[in-house]
Amino acid sequence: MTPQDHLTNQHAGALEDLKTFLNIPSVSTQPERRQDVQRCADWLKTRFENAGLEHAEVIQTAMHPIVYADWLHAPGAPTVLLYGHYDVQPAADTEHWVSPPFEATVREQRIYARGASDMKGNVHAMIRAIEALLETTRSLPVNVKFLIEGEEEIASPSFPAIAKQERERFKADYCICADSLQLSEHEPMLVLSTRGVVGFELTVTGARIDLHSGLQGGVVMNPLVALARVVASFHHDDGRIAVDGFYDQVIDIPAQTRALLARTAPSEASRLEALGVPALWGEAGFSAAERSTLRPTLEPNGLWGGYQGAGNMTVIPSQAHLKVTCRIVPNQDPAHILECLRRHIEQHTPPGVTIHATYGGDTPAYHVPLEHPAHRVIAAVLRELYGRDPVPSHQGGTVPILPMLQRHLGVTSLAFGFSLPDDQYHAPNEFWRLSSFHRAPLAFVRLLEELGRLEPTNQNG
Amino acid sequence: MTPQDHLTNQHAGALEDLKTFLNIPSVSTQPERRQDVQRCADWLKTRFENAGLEHAEVIQTAMHPIVYADWLHAPGAPTVLLYGHYDVQPAADTEHWVSPPFEATVREQRIYARGASDMKGNVHAMIRAIEALLETTRSLPVNVKFLIEGEEEIASPSFPAIAKQERERFKADYCICADSLQLSEHEPMLVLSTRGVVGFELTVTGARIDLHSGLQGGVVMNPLVALARVVASFHHDDGRIAVDGFYDQVIDIPAQTRALLARTAPSEASRLEALGVPALWGEAGFSAAERSTLRPTLEPNGLWGGYQGAGNMTVIPSQAHLKVTCRIVPNQDPAHILECLRRHIEQHTPPGVTIHATYGGDTPAYHVPLEHPAHRVIAAVLRELYGRDPVPSHQGGTVPILPMLQRHLGVTSLAFGFSLPDDQYHAPNEFWRLSSFHRAPLAFVRLLEELGRLEPTNQNG
Repeated sequence: MTPQDHLTNQHAGALEDLKTFLNIPSVSTQPERRQDVQRCADWLKTRFENAGLEHAEVIQTAMHPIVYADWLHAPGAPTVLLYGHYDVQPAADTEHWVSPPFEATVREQRIYARGASDMKGNVHAMIRAIEALLETTRSLPVNVKFLIEGEEEIASPSFPAIAKQERERFKADYCICADSLQLSEHEPMLVLSTRGVVGFELTVTGARIDLHSGLQGGVVMNPLVALARVVASFHHDDGRIAVDGFYDQVIDIPAQTRALLARTAPSEASRLEALGVPALWGEAGFSAAERSTLRPTLEPNGLWGGYQGAGNMTVIPSQAHLKVTCRIVPNQDPAHILECLRRHIEQHTPPGVTIHATYGGDTPAYHVPLEHPAHRVIAAVLRELYGRDPVPSHQGGTVPILPMLQRHLGVTSLAFGFSLPDDQYHAPNEFWRLSSFHRAPLAFVRLLEELGRLEPTNQNG
Repeated sequence: MTPQDHLTNQHAGALEDLKTFLNIPSVSTQPERRQDVQRCADWLKTRFENAGLEHAEVIQTAMHPIVYADWLHAPGAPTVLLYGHYDVQPAADTEHWVSPPFEATVREQRIYARGASDMKGNVHAMIRAIEALLETTRSLPVNVKFLIEGEEEIASPSFPAIAKQERERFKADYCICADSLQLSEHEPMLVLSTRGVVGFELTVTGARIDLHSGLQGGVVMNPLVALARVVASFHHDDGRIAVDGFYDQVIDIPAQTRALLARTAPSEASRLEALGVPALWGEAGFSAAERSTLRPTLEPNGLWGGYQGAGNMTVIPSQAHLKVTCRIVPNQDPAHILECLRRHIEQHTPPGVTIHATYGGDTPAYHVPLEHPAHRVIAAVLRELYGRDPVPSHQGGTVPILPMLQRHLGVTSLAFGFSLPDDQYHAPNEFWRLSSFHRAPLAFVRLLEELGRLEPTNQNG
């Protein structure tokens, strides 16, 4: 029996197994979910052992554990680190979910659950690939190390310390990052870059208590007005970010890359249709494809203050709050951007209020050239699976682990995952297609077979 | 026994009785409190009957009832309408209350509860005054009609229809509005004007679902940015409202009134200290006293959108929301102001989003000249009680019923109430001083005695 046959035979049981994995609400950002995150790590360790992996271990960190397992019986073959995460985004707005976010449900050839696409489905597919190879061939074409973390959705704060501590255990020739996309159900892609992220939170304080807007209206700077003025100061009318120094380190997009994006990215008409907005908007001089991949952004993620209930409450609130994240691009230094933001906020604090700011995030962008040898292997596997050449692409999202693996373990990571852009990750009704569920483990089997033909890099040697 | 002696004797029982009144959570803006509002109206009706009033009735309206009672056995004497409200502001932020908002508690010579100062304390004082006069003299110096409504905190929407229907029953020579202030514990005042109010709510919509700020960041107008830009457009940097036509109908403040305000209003230093702000802020060219009384304002009361929880959620929200109220001054037409706001919002809607706006409120400002005969009576009573002349004053708050009583019943209302500016109404830990609790019923007894010396105006005759 081939590994492929094994995967086909195991289909129904594997789907139930994935549901079990999805139904654990491993939301890393919510302190009340900490036990669930731990439970999910324990579940993974057992799953690794059942797949035939060795040295499975839940490695505790300062916050959420990393789950490790390996199979190291292919002397002379490269060692491949398989990276993923088992934590998921929150799903607070349950009223917008057709089925509950942590009760995985199959409808119309899709499996709906928080984390289905981002990225428990892909983690599960890697395990199934290993299991199929070990069950049918009693061996693997490469040495394999799984590193599945529980803090990706909160920017992997514990990772650097663990990487330092476990540098020997984690070392590898190549890293495959399965927290990644294909272009569509029928079009594969190669990921050449991802954006970095930094962020800040502001609390604007006016009077020490909420005031009556009749008695005190007109007397003080309203914290909501102050915060609105700060937010309005971040962009010029033409969409350029108005923070001094923000663009200092940004590299011009090469003409060849602009042409690639123009040729491969969704049209503006299809974006308008997909998003349901009356018009696109953003930095002047760049296409939507460029703005969402190789140009930096500044986006408020939350803003609130005052009365939000039904009816009226005529207050001038004492405080107003803001959460912002910025996506940054290759060559932008996170520390420099945070310093620019700090100066901007200081200079744009309106009179009559104080602003308390906290700054965070030090994830730079990540870039691997098209010419990397593992990219050639990945392209060949994708061509075989999809019957067409993969599209080289630049990603707007952030995978903090990619620059971290480079910085702390010295290993280059390549993106190879089977989520699709419309899978509603980070939004209500996240799903993963059953077509991806079928294709992903087959792809990982073929990838490992092909990586087995490469030389070890000895870069960690 | 004099009415004054009677009030002194009844002190302890009256305080318990007021607590019972305060403990009914008659929040008119919250639909889930509707039964509590009704219960409060029923309680008042019984209280009127126990005080010796006649024809007590809970008059149902489209929303919350009006409670009426009268005593009409003083032929030849004027008829005085005693206006108040038994509804209160919400108290949603219970974590900021030292004692629960609907469990009235006496601490440090103050009674703490939502509605203690605004204005159940004053309503209760009027009833005690009538009770004391009837118990001790078996008569009243004037004809009295109580009109206590349950919708003041939501701008009295049902009042016009009821006033039309009950025009005969409610007609009077003078109206005393007890929803009013004195300047401080030791300084009385006369209220010459109150501001009106109009308002609007906006919902800004971008994409049809929340977007991932990595994948779509930079592509669309973020509804939070759009809303911030709208809010920032409402004021010039110097605090003037930037809405075209907003100031068209505003009358210049007479030099004499500016001098009065400069002489009588709190100093800017004492305002800074009381409010705890680093600086005052508002319309250039006017003092804080002027800005909070005879100049119009535009104040956001609530603004929200996106993620408000702990940690990060990197979304571009689909929607953002805003609640605003404007205070308007004598001669400003509410409909004109709403039209100016509508035009401004249309003209300042950023590209890439749609804005749904709802507009409401048609309460103009109110003004009664210092020379009105009842003002002379009120001044004399206050002088007697406080040992000093009352300060003529202009109020920043809104009492929608004052222009409504004028428009619908043709009766001029005069403010006579015993709340104090620092009583924290509309904020956590609202209280009423026991000194006000003692003084208020004595004041109403003397006011009715003195009003008995005036001629009926026959204005309703």
